[in-house]
Amino acid sequence: MLPISPLNPDEKSPLFRQLYGQMKGLIDSGALSKGSRLPATRELAGQLGLNRTTVSAAYALLESEGLIAGHVGRGSFVTGGSDAANELSASASFSRSRPSELLFPLEEFRKTCAEVIANDDAAAILQLGSPSGYPALRRYLLEQARAEGTARDSDDILITSGCQQAFDLLQRTIGEGATVLIEDPVYLGVRSVFERAGARLVGVPVSADGIDLENLERMIARERPRLLCVTPNFQNPTGATMPLSARQALLRITQAAGVLVIENDIYGPLCYTGEPLASIKHLDQTGDTILLRSFSKVAFPGLRVGWVIARRALIEKLTEAKQWSDLHTDQLSQAVLLRFAESGRLERHRQRMLIAGAERLQAALEACEKYLPAGAKFTRPRGGMSLWIELPGALDAAELLPRAERAGVTYLPGRYFAVSRPQPNGLRISFAGMTPEEIRSGLAVLGGIFQNELERVRAHGPLVESAALV
Amino acid sequence: MLPISPLNPDEKSPLFRQLYGQMKGLIDSGALSKGSRLPATRELAGQLGLNRTTVSAAYALLESEGLIAGHVGRGSFVTGGSDAANELSASASFSRSRPSELLFPLEEFRKTCAEVIANDDAAAILQLGSPSGYPALRRYLLEQARAEGTARDSDDILITSGCQQAFDLLQRTIGEGATVLIEDPVYLGVRSVFERAGARLVGVPVSADGIDLENLERMIARERPRLLCVTPNFQNPTGATMPLSARQALLRITQAAGVLVIENDIYGPLCYTGEPLASIKHLDQTGDTILLRSFSKVAFPGLRVGWVIARRALIEKLTEAKQWSDLHTDQLSQAVLLRFAESGRLERHRQRMLIAGAERLQAALEACEKYLPAGAKFTRPRGGMSLWIELPGALDAAELLPRAERAGVTYLPGRYFAVSRPQPNGLRISFAGMTPEEIRSGLAVLGGIFQNELERVRAHGPLVESAALV
Repeated sequence: MLPISPLNPDEKSPLFRQLYGQMKGLIDSGALSKGSRLPATRELAGQLGLNRTTVSAAYALLESEGLIAGHVGRGSFVTGGSDAANELSASASFSRSRPSELLFPLEEFRKTCAEVIANDDAAAILQLGSPSGYPALRRYLLEQARAEGTARDSDDILITSGCQQAFDLLQRTIGEGATVLIEDPVYLGVRSVFERAGARLVGVPVSADGIDLENLERMIARERPRLLCVTPNFQNPTGATMPLSARQALLRITQAAGVLVIENDIYGPLCYTGEPLASIKHLDQTGDTILLRSFSKVAFPGLRVGWVIARRALIEKLTEAKQWSDLHTDQLSQAVLLRFAESGRLERHRQRMLIAGAERLQAALEACEKYLPAGAKFTRPRGGMSLWIELPGALDAAELLPRAERAGVTYLPGRYFAVSRPQPNGLRISFAGMTPEEIRSGLAVLGGIFQNELERVRAHGPLVESAALV
Repeated sequence: MLPISPLNPDEKSPLFRQLYGQMKGLIDSGALSKGSRLPATRELAGQLGLNRTTVSAAYALLESEGLIAGHVGRGSFVTGGSDAANELSASASFSRSRPSELLFPLEEFRKTCAEVIANDDAAAILQLGSPSGYPALRRYLLEQARAEGTARDSDDILITSGCQQAFDLLQRTIGEGATVLIEDPVYLGVRSVFERAGARLVGVPVSADGIDLENLERMIARERPRLLCVTPNFQNPTGATMPLSARQALLRITQAAGVLVIENDIYGPLCYTGEPLASIKHLDQTGDTILLRSFSKVAFPGLRVGWVIARRALIEKLTEAKQWSDLHTDQLSQAVLLRFAESGRLERHRQRMLIAGAERLQAALEACEKYLPAGAKFTRPRGGMSLWIELPGALDAAELLPRAERAGVTYLPGRYFAVSRPQPNGLRISFAGMTPEEIRSGLAVLGGIFQNELERVRAHGPLVESAALV
């Protein structure tokens, strides 16, 4: 039974506000903990001797603040709480496409660092380095790419401060004044780099099979772009994968039109189900495709080391741009990541990431099935870190976000990723950074909020009134 | 006696070329080692039964390739040698403004790394970070700057990937389409950042007391610049220091004209003689000055961590530009450098760097006195890593560089640093990365080459003819 003191009908504040105030106090103090089920309105009304609408109005007010969420047929649950509780859950949110730090192999990382700094080469690592990158790391990555058939003899490699810098350098080197085709929706970092530099951006719709080829062909004919940025594996934000045939078709289309392809493959090593597919760079017989890869998703995002593989002449230009951007990428991290890879630890870590990722992906898909309202659609990625939800009806994911945040759950709404097509009903769920349990409970909360809003929109019923109470 | 086989007058190749070929072979093979004194032309001519002009011509050819150098009154010496020998001495060259790796406190660095990665916070360091920088490092540096009176309440801090990136972000944020005053001569990295972005650059001459204030005032009136980049401590390349009164006068001039000052203070902590002077940022009562600092010169250049202190509103803009440049600066290095500083190791290392730097500076100044030809001028820095030589007469430091390189000594010629005033007779000597012995022997070689060329130019004598033989 809820510890609610008797309400006072003579007070200036209406009864529903008094009840709201007491319940908010219980939730904020933690006396009513997150996930607790609230009594049904009828039950609480009976207990306190109140009219049921009074209780409903108090609940509506709590819900509008994200402190509770109603689930049809299951009642209302506490979803918000004290600031400390909110911070805790926000740090395990759906809004960031990054691995869980619980999966970091700290002991192996420590050993790796110790080995690197005990090495005779340590002084050279601390000394001023080369804009091209730490020579031993460049050799290692280029040999690996040659062995797997991704890099050709005409290719070279540049180490960048993460994949974000690779985009920035490409924009500066070959993007000046260009028309650039990018996926729509797309990771904000790609859009921002070109947008800030004044490029003309055209979004090509992405479906579950990746970038839409019919649209691509039409847009190339119409817009005559110089560049196309594409993420064939587990695209951010949709999680979409391009089938092999689509990759080949994309090459035919872009080569016929003389469009240069920038292939963002930072999620490629995180393939949870099915066989990994050949990269576009691998399939490209001309060698023109520009391949971007990174250690940040598969290993440690806090260490900023990515790389570009492309024709030697372009790598030279990029290297010059790199030099005046930041001289060179941090060498301690380059040396540590090289050792981490060479020692076999990276591959062992990746195998563990694949198991954990598959679990998390499955938890996310099952929770979407279970908790999302009927009519919601979601992608079914084969790897990576994110999936994409499209809400039914006129639901706007950005409008619902504050409510979700007050319930301790965050995500990034569709408009954050939009290029040419606003998708107000879309949202990205990044599952990789959370435990399966957090994924389930987070999606349960979101499902409740979406379902509730859907019912409100459909009914134009009592909740519209109560929303006006705030 | 030189092991020269008899020459053959019937061969197609003239005798001096045959002699040159044999001697070159002796030098390249190491049989004639660097520093060896060659017999006088008269002596060798006698020994081989040759005309003295034949020997002189062979020597001239060797000298034009930098394999030997003639010193008036002391004879000729071997200055070049095998590739291995060249690489060895080139790695201890005067061309790079960086600390000597022999001074790196590797053991202390190892301890620091071990402590950082053993810390409970290690997972957070490896996780995706903030564009603003690693929070604990930002706090530490900002508190330090506030304590010393450099940062005001209205200021904030951004961690950058070295000072080079700070310039790049400033260019992108407040440099667009601007007229920018920079020192002349200036570090190429500063010039390149603004030049590549299409800014209008105007060079303000630098004397031994830093940027010339009369010129500055005139140029501000004429060019109406938006920005001024200035290095008051141990400027690169000249080593010049601005006296306190000049810093105050610079502020009066720029403030009256509404010119924003970017103060590059990466060499400031390396003050070998006299008291350190207050930074322009410190003196600036308005708080408008933008201060750039870095760990790269005083600690480890291979770890790319610098910072900007400026008004909060500007730091916000820079942080946004930073985010789309490379998301954030490497966190492992930020955490390691924070620990290195907090533990007191950085300050202990700096004290050792001050002693070593003073020694190296003294060696460089003494060697300049001793070996440079009469009429050469050179700056007398109080700290930092470089000094500036102006050669007498019409000597061109860039033209002489290949000769110096073949003698195993490198430097950067004046034209590398020029903005508006070409200074073909200028060159930068970066002494910090070399041992006092290397500094002495390197400057002895350079002095010989410069002296030789000076005599050749003055005499228009036999060496002009022999040069035409090549």
